[in-house]
Amino acid sequence: MSNQNLPVKAELYNRRHLLKLGLASVGLTGAGLVLSTFGQKQKTKVKVPPLPKRSATAANSFNPLVLLRDFDYGTVKQENGRTVREFNFEARNSTLQLTRAVDFASWNINGRVPGPTIRATAGDRVRVIFRNSAGHSHSLHFHGIHSADMDGVVPIRHGSTKVFEFDAEPFGLHLYHCHIAPVTRHIGKGLYGMFIIDPEQGRPSADEIVMVMGGYDVNEDGRNELYAFNGIPDYYKEHPIPIQQDQLIRLYLLNMTELEPALTFHIHANMFRVYRTGRTLTPSEETDVITMGIAERHILEFSYGTPGMYMFHPHQDQIAEAGCMGNFNVVGNT
Amino acid sequence: MSNQNLPVKAELYNRRHLLKLGLASVGLTGAGLVLSTFGQKQKTKVKVPPLPKRSATAANSFNPLVLLRDFDYGTVKQENGRTVREFNFEARNSTLQLTRAVDFASWNINGRVPGPTIRATAGDRVRVIFRNSAGHSHSLHFHGIHSADMDGVVPIRHGSTKVFEFDAEPFGLHLYHCHIAPVTRHIGKGLYGMFIIDPEQGRPSADEIVMVMGGYDVNEDGRNELYAFNGIPDYYKEHPIPIQQDQLIRLYLLNMTELEPALTFHIHANMFRVYRTGRTLTPSEETDVITMGIAERHILEFSYGTPGMYMFHPHQDQIAEAGCMGNFNVVGNT
Amino acid sequence: MSNQNLPVKAELYNRRHLLKLGLASVGLTGAGLVLSTFGQKQKTKVKVPPLPKRSATAANSFNPLVLLRDFDYGTVKQENGRTVREFNFEARNSTLQLTRAVDFASWNINGRVPGPTIRATAGDRVRVIFRNSAGHSHSLHFHGIHSADMDGVVPIRHGSTKVFEFDAEPFGLHLYHCHIAPVTRHIGKGLYGMFIIDPEQGRPSADEIVMVMGGYDVNEDGRNELYAFNGIPDYYKEHPIPIQQDQLIRLYLLNMTELEPALTFHIHANMFRVYRTGRTLTPSEETDVITMGIAERHILEFSYGTPGMYMFHPHQDQIAEAGCMGNFNVVGNT
Repeated sequence: MSNQNLPVKAELYNRRHLLKLGLASVGLTGAGLVLSTFGQKQKTKVKVPPLPKRSATAANSFNPLVLLRDFDYGTVKQENGRTVREFNFEARNSTLQLTRAVDFASWNINGRVPGPTIRATAGDRVRVIFRNSAGHSHSLHFHGIHSADMDGVVPIRHGSTKVFEFDAEPFGLHLYHCHIAPVTRHIGKGLYGMFIIDPEQGRPSADEIVMVMGGYDVNEDGRNELYAFNGIPDYYKEHPIPIQQDQLIRLYLLNMTELEPALTFHIHANMFRVYRTGRTLTPSEETDVITMGIAERHILEFSYGTPGMYMFHPHQDQIAEAGCMGNFNVVGNT
Repeated sequence: MSNQNLPVKAELYNRRHLLKLGLASVGLTGAGLVLSTFGQKQKTKVKVPPLPKRSATAANSFNPLVLLRDFDYGTVKQENGRTVREFNFEARNSTLQLTRAVDFASWNINGRVPGPTIRATAGDRVRVIFRNSAGHSHSLHFHGIHSADMDGVVPIRHGSTKVFEFDAEPFGLHLYHCHIAPVTRHIGKGLYGMFIIDPEQGRPSADEIVMVMGGYDVNEDGRNELYAFNGIPDYYKEHPIPIQQDQLIRLYLLNMTELEPALTFHIHANMFRVYRTGRTLTPSEETDVITMGIAERHILEFSYGTPGMYMFHPHQDQIAEAGCMGNFNVVGNT
Repeated sequence: MSNQNLPVKAELYNRRHLLKLGLASVGLTGAGLVLSTFGQKQKTKVKVPPLPKRSATAANSFNPLVLLRDFDYGTVKQENGRTVREFNFEARNSTLQLTRAVDFASWNINGRVPGPTIRATAGDRVRVIFRNSAGHSHSLHFHGIHSADMDGVVPIRHGSTKVFEFDAEPFGLHLYHCHIAPVTRHIGKGLYGMFIIDPEQGRPSADEIVMVMGGYDVNEDGRNELYAFNGIPDYYKEHPIPIQQDQLIRLYLLNMTELEPALTFHIHANMFRVYRTGRTLTPSEETDVITMGIAERHILEFSYGTPGMYMFHPHQDQIAEAGCMGNFNVVGNT
């Protein structure tokens, strides 16, 4: 298990690169530690165990195990010499089966909660064609840098389409969500997703997975009764996530749990390195419990040295026991 | 909008300076990134758009738009070869008009919520002459370093005066508040303010603004019904804060919201750099959402590259929609 | 009071050491600031004032003033050329007198809340012999790195014994607690404690103290009515902790307060340096208020330059006034 202390390659970019990003001089990257390995971008092989077959009784139209590693890079076009990534988003209503007893009328993008994880590289042009087919007004507000007219706080009526377009900047882990009041309700209903902007030089090879923590106010009493990683309560508890022993895992983690001031996230029997808001190439902290307000998101990296089953959950145990619980199934190297 | 990535000058102090502050060696400053520009302290010109004229219907005795940039440096005296800054504080009761329908009996300093933003340079002597004219006991507890007899936890009766005196140390963003039990009530009523200690060498030129997030338990049921930036709910929503395009903004931000475990703070369409507790000259993080417990305070820096209207608010949307919401009006160059 | 800004020796390990720990290259240590003092590990003398005599009316079997500095290094054995530390843990039920009016049926380790503070050096072998004598099932889940079969999430029935054994890694501040559902209840009843792993090279000499913040749902209504540092509400308020003027204090601080999303911790009239999760040898931040989710823990360092009485408490003042309040009694150097 001593692999926890092995150097990772995340920081192996040289100072020239960092200067180009404008980060070296604002002190975010710990450039004093950067080694000169520019030009050595060889990727190591990533081992991802096969997913178990889905049970026949699965009720929802999406499979949270697939959603984990489902990145949408959009339709790529070249326009005026630059890369444009075009994404089609449709605001929909659909019923989620949260538990065997509880159905939930969700508002979402493209029929899944969370919505598509869209992904671009810093400097790309992003174009999101947003059609509202949900029966009432919604909007699409992105985090990241863009102009006021692309900020997505104006209601878009049912049947209307609006095109959001902006440069992908800065690199890091961002998100999108509906910004129609009451926002707590629009987010609580499921209208959110993750927006990853990769640094130009990429990050080291890893098994990359995505998790969003969310809550459900099922009986509309202003409190959450159920919680989930990636939409369906207890899904990863009942269907553990297979990961490979000694494989670097890069977890893109977002807290979208309205009605709670903050959530913690804990992994068992291990520590993770934290890249806050994904805005750095070197970690700033190593821990096994992190506190995250609503819309906070971080990249966490870790690997497990010993096969077996390991829990992850908020350390607010009532929330963990109400659906926000999962397991990693660490598959051994033969 | 790429100005977000430009190097800022905050870190352009040399190692000798940092050593003098005793910070280089405790690892707080990322000194590995510090460039040798000692002696180049030229200040760049700061552009601050004019404030709009105040509406005739304004009910409160203070104008939150003025309060934003209202720094009280005290009456400056030289005593025994050092600079003494003397401040006159009076604990008062006054009625705030929180909304058209809601008046609130506040307890405050000098008739405003938050109280005066007092400001000194590290090493100055600070003298606060505190007179209690509020009708019942209060106290004045400062954050920062001082001796036990200046800690302000002893009640000061109506009609009494106490002089608090201490060295301004260490540089950073601090606060003061009443420390009479129940403290939650004394703070919730409005008896708090900000205390800035500038580093000896100063910080780079910027448009500096102050915001305190607070809550009001209007009906005294142990919960907040209204929230505000700088005292008056929704003021900056209805009266956007004019800031200049491409101008570095330095936001001194304090959370004094009792009855909530923590608040987040989010700005739209942009990222900010974080100087935790104002205790560093280089930022430690860049994000657009930060979680802050009660009495936490940080310096945030950012600039907007495109004119337009941009929201800021806690990402706890129920709190944002109950008064803790504002807009920046980014005024274009030329 | 300017001693706050004096360099501490915490960071005085050279780069070679850090590389050995595998930390230099992950950017956690601010190695750019590390000075070359390898070989200068002389320890300075630590001054700890004598504890006051305990009042005759003390009702509980443990004295929180003694518990502060009570480190359990286990029974040390050499097995196959390495150091093994063996600890005997017994899950028990015992009644705590929380206030003169309130008794509480606690579940705990070895009759105290928090349980023993166990301590090892990175690389040691840790063996905890856990006997459950509590009348119903418990478990013992450790934070830190270990294999799945040592993760302590399986119930251990009354009368049974299980031996937990793992390498002490990584250095830092960890914890243990019962992981039987409902975990909120098992932790709230008192079944938790601290687990310190010292770095191989040690940390600079200091007066080291341990504090755990916890809450009590006395009437089992799903909310805490009382809070405490180290088990007994208001103990350190009524029995201030004697510390010496100008003595470096190293506080190992853990938040185990279930039913609250997060707690803050504040010391009066001073600042502290933060070593997050104890995972670094240099601090990352200096402040006087820190926000901590459940199971978050950090090492805080500070010293007081002026004798007198200084409060510490969460800055959620209702929680402070419900038992989570204490005083440092800073004893002057004659």
